Amino acid sequence: MSPDDASRDFVNTSGETTRSLRDRPLLIVFTGEGKGKTTAALGMALRAWNRGWPIGVFQFVKSGRWQVGERAAFAALDATHQQSGVGAPVHWEHLGSGWSWLPQREGVDPAQAAQQGWSRVADCLADQRYSFLVLDEFTYPMARGWVDPETVLATLRARPGFQHVVITGRDCPATVLDAADLVTSMTKVRHPFDQGRRGQRGIEW
Amino acid sequence: MSPDDASRDFVNTSGETTRSLRDRPLLIVFTGEGKGKTTAALGMALRAWNRGWPIGVFQFVKSGRWQVGERAAFAALDATHQQSGVGAPVHWEHLGSGWSWLPQREGVDPAQAAQQGWSRVADCLADQRYSFLVLDEFTYPMARGWVDPETVLATLRARPGFQHVVITGRDCPATVLDAADLVTSMTKVRHPFDQGRRGQRGIEW
Repeated sequence: MSPDDASRDFVNTSGETTRSLRDRPLLIVFTGEGKGKTTAALGMALRAWNRGWPIGVFQFVKSGRWQVGERAAFAALDATHQQSGVGAPVHWEHLGSGWSWLPQREGVDPAQAAQQGWSRVADCLADQRYSFLVLDEFTYPMARGWVDPETVLATLRARPGFQHVVITGRDCPATVLDAADLVTSMTKVRHPFDQGRRGQRGIEW
Repeated sequence: MSPDDASRDFVNTSGETTRSLRDRPLLIVFTGEGKGKTTAALGMALRAWNRGWPIGVFQFVKSGRWQVGERAAFAALDATHQQSGVGAPVHWEHLGSGWSWLPQREGVDPAQAAQQGWSRVADCLADQRYSFLVLDEFTYPMARGWVDPETVLATLRARPGFQHVVITGRDCPATVLDAADLVTSMTKVRHPFDQGRRGQRGIEW
């Protein structure tokens, strides 16, 4: 939505000037049971890419296979940037392989893996390594108590410079929702699995 | 979600084999008041790109400025395909410039422009020009009665070959929701505009 369009739909009820209201680093959450959370976050990352903002995608998920399609596309966009200077660099990191909100693998402490993953993100935030960060499926380690939401929020509130952060996943802790600037809940209305269909390539992965 | 994960969350209650249930062309709708509809559709298109499926994006929106970020990113992905054969071709078309669900421009009949836009999409479907089509903001011309939803559904039901179709936008007609295989409603929980903020570059466009 362009700002001109936005102003037709939403009324600015504060006393601030529009200039001071713009271009703030946002905390964005895509949550809910429906499909489209990760894809919306990565679609938004396309805009960041076009702005020349370095992108960091951190996946807090189980399998290396997950979202391989998007990862390949962003690798191509990163290569375009390296070759031509157009767009922005894209860094994609898979944190916590071997742990999951799904049944655990033997010998891996999911809490420890999640904490290590979050420490990695916190370091990147402190270094201002990226301007647009996607913490994919990061709600799960918070919801399970592996990573303390209050610690996360304190780090996010204190993050230096201009860094947008997008968190995706179901069961987002209420404190994180309360602190977020933008929250969309993806509500499942109908899903092919309901009719007994299984996931298919190009759609689910 | 990978198919293995899917089978844990959803139970196949039909008598069909899993093979016959897979790889069907889907009608997908992202609707609701919240943010993330177009970005989710385009994020899904990244998966299609990685599968080598030719992509057609048709924007039924007002201004050429809209979603310029995503368009530039997909142009880069198209160029990658042209140069290296990786991924898939991406065609991006802006239909109905000059008409809109927003206040009309003088001298342009929005119903006529919308119908011409839909005819263009119907031709592409008949020709099987793309394997993954995004009809962005296409709910609006249907909701306004400029394009008959029943006509659209008849064309979609009869589409040949293997063509996934994703429709985005608010106020999706009930008949289209009923006919869709996958429907997610993006529910607005919190939006920066609520706090009087305006849209900002890299986020809204």
